[in-house]
Amino acid sequence: MSTTILRGTVVSVEISITKPTVIIGERINPTRKKELTTALKEGNFDLIRDEALAQQEEGADVIDVNVGAPGVDEVALLPLAVKMAAEATGLPISIDSSNPLAIEAALKTCPGKPLINSVSGETRSLEQILPLAKEYNAAVIGLCMDDSGVNPDPDERFKVANTILERAAALGIAAGDVIFDPLVLNVGTDFHAAKTTLEVVKLIANNLGMNIATGSSNISHGLPNRAYLNNSFLALSIFNGVTIPIVNPAAPGLVETVRSTDLLLEKDPRAMRFLKLYRQRNKKING
Amino acid sequence: MSTTILRGTVVSVEISITKPTVIIGERINPTRKKELTTALKEGNFDLIRDEALAQQEEGADVIDVNVGAPGVDEVALLPLAVKMAAEATGLPISIDSSNPLAIEAALKTCPGKPLINSVSGETRSLEQILPLAKEYNAAVIGLCMDDSGVNPDPDERFKVANTILERAAALGIAAGDVIFDPLVLNVGTDFHAAKTTLEVVKLIANNLGMNIATGSSNISHGLPNRAYLNNSFLALSIFNGVTIPIVNPAAPGLVETVRSTDLLLEKDPRAMRFLKLYRQRNKKING
Repeated sequence: MSTTILRGTVVSVEISITKPTVIIGERINPTRKKELTTALKEGNFDLIRDEALAQQEEGADVIDVNVGAPGVDEVALLPLAVKMAAEATGLPISIDSSNPLAIEAALKTCPGKPLINSVSGETRSLEQILPLAKEYNAAVIGLCMDDSGVNPDPDERFKVANTILERAAALGIAAGDVIFDPLVLNVGTDFHAAKTTLEVVKLIANNLGMNIATGSSNISHGLPNRAYLNNSFLALSIFNGVTIPIVNPAAPGLVETVRSTDLLLEKDPRAMRFLKLYRQRNKKING
Repeated sequence: MSTTILRGTVVSVEISITKPTVIIGERINPTRKKELTTALKEGNFDLIRDEALAQQEEGADVIDVNVGAPGVDEVALLPLAVKMAAEATGLPISIDSSNPLAIEAALKTCPGKPLINSVSGETRSLEQILPLAKEYNAAVIGLCMDDSGVNPDPDERFKVANTILERAAALGIAAGDVIFDPLVLNVGTDFHAAKTTLEVVKLIANNLGMNIATGSSNISHGLPNRAYLNNSFLALSIFNGVTIPIVNPAAPGLVETVRSTDLLLEKDPRAMRFLKLYRQRNKKING
């Protein structure tokens, strides 16, 4: 069973199937957020800092930083945004971009040991992004898709995981530094979406024993009552082997679901984390 | 894969791993409910009717009826309570007692095809209750415990299931008329409680292909924030093979969790039930 270590300026996290689930906070992402896009264009990082701190307070263990938006100079801004989030929280950072130049610029300034989000099985991505994980001693998320896209067949997605793993090994990247994302389509348009992803999760967990990330809220895209679908899917994902979901920690019941599932799956001895969350939330409500 | 059919005066339900999860409403039970106990002693069944109707409205497919309390004459009252709940709702009934005389009296008056809740692997229970299922053509829940109690070892609980199944077969009871309850201890005092139950569920589902009931809220007994624990455990239970949970359908997010999990596990084509629940709840909120 793989262990992945990520380090921030203050906090380090150890990711493993036997440890509590690690939450990546996904909210620093300008997609469909006009205010954040405008602030980034103006070189104003206050919102980045606020969102990083808010997510930490809500339960995020790692802060994902994405500044990709039309009109935003990612190569110039990603390093600054990453630095702001890292220094504000002390948490490890997930550097979120598909632009190798922006990723490299961010890796140069990011303290600790970050996570690159992400490489894929696409030829260009493997050639341009994977070597950066080795060069800068970062961990990296490998998306289970290749030049032909996201395959509906779990076995095919698992093959892509193996390809990424082989390429990483050839570059001298430790298996523990690779985390897979099986990819989540939405169950509203693809009836098999959840079972397909869970099948890929099982294949990776049972055959490779490696850490697994998912952007689990994609499952409910286009449907109402999303929180219940997301939380149920999250519980099933963790049961099958997801160790580091990429989520909005402010979503209703999300952190509670993670803490509950961890307790049920014997990842939270003496219910310490479960009870700590209860006390925190209770304190908030009662003043 | 077994199919169990239960019939009420109006509604029949088909229970199977490929069908939507069937919800047994557990609220007609005087344990720790003073008002219900008093009403029962006075021969007043209005509360029974109200609770049956309320649970149906909330999403119960089967109504469990238990009148066991100190000072209550179960043999006299269980048949009347069962009849009231059956006629008020038209739903199938789960006759909930450990008293064979009360069960038999209720079976004599209960319309349709009810469920007996429950027989266990205890000698007396097998001898006195199991034959009633055959005689009155009822389905029956078999608790995975025997004269030595609830075993912490999943394999031992599975052995009890097999014993009950053999005894039922010897009496000529169809496998489809037996539903197992793997039993749920609480995770606050037994760290392994959830994984143990899920392991028994898997053993029954994978080896016998039979329907499985659970009183899933027991998992959180004695802990705070119970709804999240219960709902996460329910999602995991359904994933592993539970087809007919025994629950309070008014518990926060419970029916939503069942509908969500069914959609994720391809038990709800075109999301019909998921969307129907959303429309019902939305209508309630918006007047």
